[in-house]
Amino acid sequence: MSQNLRVAVIGAGRMGIDHIQRIHRRIHGAEVAAVVDIDLDRANAAIADIPGAVALTDAQAALDNPDINAVLIATPGFLHEEILHAALVKDIPILCEKPLTPDAESAWKVVQAEEKLGRKRIQVGFMRRYDAEYAQLGNIIRSGELGELLVLHHQHRNPATPPGFTNEMLINDSVVHEFDAVRFFTGEEITSVQVRMGKRTRNAPEGQHDPQHVLLETESGVLADVEIYVNAQYGYEVATQASFEEGVVSIGSDSGPYVRTQGRWGGTVTPGFEERFGAAYDVEIQAWVDAALKDEIGGPSAWDGYATAACCEAGVEAQKTGGKVTVALNPKPALYN
Amino acid sequence: MSQNLRVAVIGAGRMGIDHIQRIHRRIHGAEVAAVVDIDLDRANAAIADIPGAVALTDAQAALDNPDINAVLIATPGFLHEEILHAALVKDIPILCEKPLTPDAESAWKVVQAEEKLGRKRIQVGFMRRYDAEYAQLGNIIRSGELGELLVLHHQHRNPATPPGFTNEMLINDSVVHEFDAVRFFTGEEITSVQVRMGKRTRNAPEGQHDPQHVLLETESGVLADVEIYVNAQYGYEVATQASFEEGVVSIGSDSGPYVRTQGRWGGTVTPGFEERFGAAYDVEIQAWVDAALKDEIGGPSAWDGYATAACCEAGVEAQKTGGKVTVALNPKPALYN
Amino acid sequence: MSQNLRVAVIGAGRMGIDHIQRIHRRIHGAEVAAVVDIDLDRANAAIADIPGAVALTDAQAALDNPDINAVLIATPGFLHEEILHAALVKDIPILCEKPLTPDAESAWKVVQAEEKLGRKRIQVGFMRRYDAEYAQLGNIIRSGELGELLVLHHQHRNPATPPGFTNEMLINDSVVHEFDAVRFFTGEEITSVQVRMGKRTRNAPEGQHDPQHVLLETESGVLADVEIYVNAQYGYEVATQASFEEGVVSIGSDSGPYVRTQGRWGGTVTPGFEERFGAAYDVEIQAWVDAALKDEIGGPSAWDGYATAACCEAGVEAQKTGGKVTVALNPKPALYN
Amino acid sequence: MSQNLRVAVIGAGRMGIDHIQRIHRRIHGAEVAAVVDIDLDRANAAIADIPGAVALTDAQAALDNPDINAVLIATPGFLHEEILHAALVKDIPILCEKPLTPDAESAWKVVQAEEKLGRKRIQVGFMRRYDAEYAQLGNIIRSGELGELLVLHHQHRNPATPPGFTNEMLINDSVVHEFDAVRFFTGEEITSVQVRMGKRTRNAPEGQHDPQHVLLETESGVLADVEIYVNAQYGYEVATQASFEEGVVSIGSDSGPYVRTQGRWGGTVTPGFEERFGAAYDVEIQAWVDAALKDEIGGPSAWDGYATAACCEAGVEAQKTGGKVTVALNPKPALYN
Repeated sequence: MSQNLRVAVIGAGRMGIDHIQRIHRRIHGAEVAAVVDIDLDRANAAIADIPGAVALTDAQAALDNPDINAVLIATPGFLHEEILHAALVKDIPILCEKPLTPDAESAWKVVQAEEKLGRKRIQVGFMRRYDAEYAQLGNIIRSGELGELLVLHHQHRNPATPPGFTNEMLINDSVVHEFDAVRFFTGEEITSVQVRMGKRTRNAPEGQHDPQHVLLETESGVLADVEIYVNAQYGYEVATQASFEEGVVSIGSDSGPYVRTQGRWGGTVTPGFEERFGAAYDVEIQAWVDAALKDEIGGPSAWDGYATAACCEAGVEAQKTGGKVTVALNPKPALYN
Repeated sequence: MSQNLRVAVIGAGRMGIDHIQRIHRRIHGAEVAAVVDIDLDRANAAIADIPGAVALTDAQAALDNPDINAVLIATPGFLHEEILHAALVKDIPILCEKPLTPDAESAWKVVQAEEKLGRKRIQVGFMRRYDAEYAQLGNIIRSGELGELLVLHHQHRNPATPPGFTNEMLINDSVVHEFDAVRFFTGEEITSVQVRMGKRTRNAPEGQHDPQHVLLETESGVLADVEIYVNAQYGYEVATQASFEEGVVSIGSDSGPYVRTQGRWGGTVTPGFEERFGAAYDVEIQAWVDAALKDEIGGPSAWDGYATAACCEAGVEAQKTGGKVTVALNPKPALYN
Repeated sequence: MSQNLRVAVIGAGRMGIDHIQRIHRRIHGAEVAAVVDIDLDRANAAIADIPGAVALTDAQAALDNPDINAVLIATPGFLHEEILHAALVKDIPILCEKPLTPDAESAWKVVQAEEKLGRKRIQVGFMRRYDAEYAQLGNIIRSGELGELLVLHHQHRNPATPPGFTNEMLINDSVVHEFDAVRFFTGEEITSVQVRMGKRTRNAPEGQHDPQHVLLETESGVLADVEIYVNAQYGYEVATQASFEEGVVSIGSDSGPYVRTQGRWGGTVTPGFEERFGAAYDVEIQAWVDAALKDEIGGPSAWDGYATAACCEAGVEAQKTGGKVTVALNPKPALYN
Repeated sequence: MSQNLRVAVIGAGRMGIDHIQRIHRRIHGAEVAAVVDIDLDRANAAIADIPGAVALTDAQAALDNPDINAVLIATPGFLHEEILHAALVKDIPILCEKPLTPDAESAWKVVQAEEKLGRKRIQVGFMRRYDAEYAQLGNIIRSGELGELLVLHHQHRNPATPPGFTNEMLINDSVVHEFDAVRFFTGEEITSVQVRMGKRTRNAPEGQHDPQHVLLETESGVLADVEIYVNAQYGYEVATQASFEEGVVSIGSDSGPYVRTQGRWGGTVTPGFEERFGAAYDVEIQAWVDAALKDEIGGPSAWDGYATAACCEAGVEAQKTGGKVTVALNPKPALYN
């Protein structure tokens, strides 16, 4: 059907492939029209089972193709800025995997470009907002049914890290999700970040201090803390416990079949983020497509990308100093209210 | 895209509307091309937001439309037989909501017609097989990792029944899912059915005995029992506990955010089958579409529809006699092996 | 202190030793004054750390000892009858491990002897009534807060059976607890028993059919069923799920530390009845001692012992016939109302 | 029996009464010989159902009574020091409710007095060490089966505070248990304390900041944090989650019957510490009695009382400064190794 969104996916790595297959197999109203990767073989492999899609090595060529009316950016973060500006020029719906850009200054330039355009065109890939339990906790908070939210305890645990995963990446690639989650839950900006480092697991690669304990505060004084533990071995776990004036809510519990055997009760731990958040990715992309087909954009905005980039910068500094680092943001443009 | 499945949905009641919206909003590779309902207003309402779809009152007219290449049957069960035969004549992929037909004799005729056609074209809407936990329990059983399966305990609880829900419907509309589940889990046919009736809830409508305790046996001697309780008030719950030689597995536990407030811990009970099995319906329909686009059919077959119809007949008789009723099936055609 | 209960424990086997240590180390207001066992060495070993206690081989000698004012019977069941009659003659408080006696006829004679004595002196060791969760479920039932109780599902699973454990013992030693539990929960007598035998675990010893599915009915029509599975390998589990008019209550869930490691979440299964019901035994014995010091007797009565013996007889018959066996009781003496 | 421990309980307030009844009704090998309270009526009421016990207003008189050979101190903390020194002079077994004394300096004097006596006579009432789940987590840590312990997350929530409960008491009366728990779990001393104060619940009384987030470090660098929230309304909850090199362990989950009704699943929250830790108190007192009858003392020592007093002082200072406060301890006397 002619009204389908025809998407260029930029980047055919792990995340890009995942989105290509998602759009090709499960998302209604969108098609993969082009896949761009600096490695043409990789791009060609990615479209092997998608009739009508083209493989390219140049993002600009994809954007210039009149057959394409939407773009999903899944390259490494340092390549986002240039593509974002080029896509904003085309005035088409953009879904940009997190981070928006790797630092607050470049993210702010994207915000300014979008503001100049005068309409929101960018959605950032903070997919957790589309997870059913995150949405339910968000609803409980906004409803006020348990009184004011007071404290948030987050755990973010990965089985292991890929080679070369540094302390900075631990903030920029992992804790960044928690920064957005705290902002999503509270509807407030984060005002300070502190990082505690204690005993280090022997399973961490050299040069990486793991786990770390990240302390956040929000505008109204909500206290949040994050145990970030990326070599936790046993599996993937993302959980939050929220303390309210009249109760406590926990999300992220283990689920699935409940087995008793060999003297044990329990089940299997989710092995990775694909299993934990796969359904959330589906919902996220479908929501982006549905909005784009109506010429709208929703979800996490470029401002959210900018604000979390500022938190990441503060977090990396806090890793070094051990003290509390203030997060200072530029005034929020009216476009994002 | 031209290769999309163009589906006629027959029946625009609760289930039909649900599938129409599912195909229209979430399923990739299929479109709602026509909606058929004896009430034209209802058919028109069902396609109001679907450009390109037509509303009809005659199923044959939809099947005769060359623009249509698949059919989803969601009418009341007593209307299935005629449409199934007409659709088989067209040799197109059919998804038929359960029951295949309301009795074993008519179901057997459908099986024979499909056998005569020489290829499988019918998938029956036993969507539980597409539920993640059902699939996982099925995998555990087939893997043999816990030894042989010995006993299955099922609970099937609904908050309440619609007006006119009889004892027979309790078997034919509710327990029928458990018949299929026991067959799915064991990979065996059910050989006998017994029904125990004890104390009756005051919340059951007049003429309906609720709850009932249904006892099943399979070919290899697996004992199964089902508490069917359709006026359980507190919500919808479908659970199974399986005892193996080396362990026990339970599925269907409550999940979702875990709340502590007002002296209580816990969460909310799933209110209905849409919430409990909504994702399973999505997976089921997507699987049917994906297979149909490759000119294949999978999932529960017409034989499964026939075999469960025979169980239902035995179940209704067992309600009356209180004794154990044997389930006798015709020989299984080679098409279904 | 002179007012302490001075208890003769008859039988120094596994259960007797357990009670001797319990009384000696944890129970207030009682002392082990004598241990009787046909094997004097065993009796002597049992009192090795208990100053002031005597070891005997003759129960009558213990009962005749003026220093003794209470008796706890922990011999094999077939020896109970004679000791019970002898102890009733002494008119002292008696705690008799289950079963009261091995058959309904001899149990009825004990009931008659106690009735003739004119006061209750016997408490039977159905310790589950003293388990916190059993008590809580009992309270919920009696309160009527969830409406009428309709259905009870029981699971009774043991890791393995000792050598020589027969089908009859499976009823008399294991299901007997469930008979009492159903009577305790409902406050009614059991009116029929049926036993289903299906697929047999390869872990059962020769001559024993395991698991079995026992079906019970009570006077008001409550349906109960018991999965009795005594070679379940993975551990000890006793659980009940109760369906009411306005809700469902489950007891017997796994508990203890919740561990995530090696791709699994969960904990350890209770290995045996000592761990599962150890606290209940303490509460039971303390309750018996407290009552006895006030010259009273409470808890499960000789009537309960008789009624469950009648259920066991019906259960053993039902194992053989496969059909439903009626349980017929003598009229209940006024003493037990 | 002559060898029973004859205990003087000093203080007949809430905790004292609880212990008096515990010793009188459930503890084997001990009797309440005297109850001392400044309010004689209260002391008399406390012994009303205990034949042979005497009521006094003067602790020294109780200690001088040759019939008394043990003392349990349950007065307010500021009265402990004098009684402890007097009891040490008598060289009898002492169970002192926490805190040992209200400040590190006076606690150190008690430690020195006991050291001078040359044998341990004092057990401090940190009863959590006797809770089954605390003990199990402690065992997992010491076993090394999950690798090194890295992080401890504690939640300590009360429904509400009594009148006059200040910020200092929040540390000295509530967090003190967590100080001991961290020391118990790690087997290390706490080296620093920091307190974060954020959004305040409207349910906190004037002058009290609630909740607070307390951050601890131990000698080897284990990071611990405590959410202390004493007006949490919904009930009493004490939980810990421990992150290891190869897994995560959680204790303190809700338990009890699992109910589904009115659209909810779950159970009831423990209302107070008596219900949560009642069994731990029983085990603690029985352990103290059993040891005392063998002329020994075990459990938390005067050193533990002193070390936690030093943590409390640091915690109160940290509340004021917001910064990290170092905990400095005197060298540990050999008596406590």
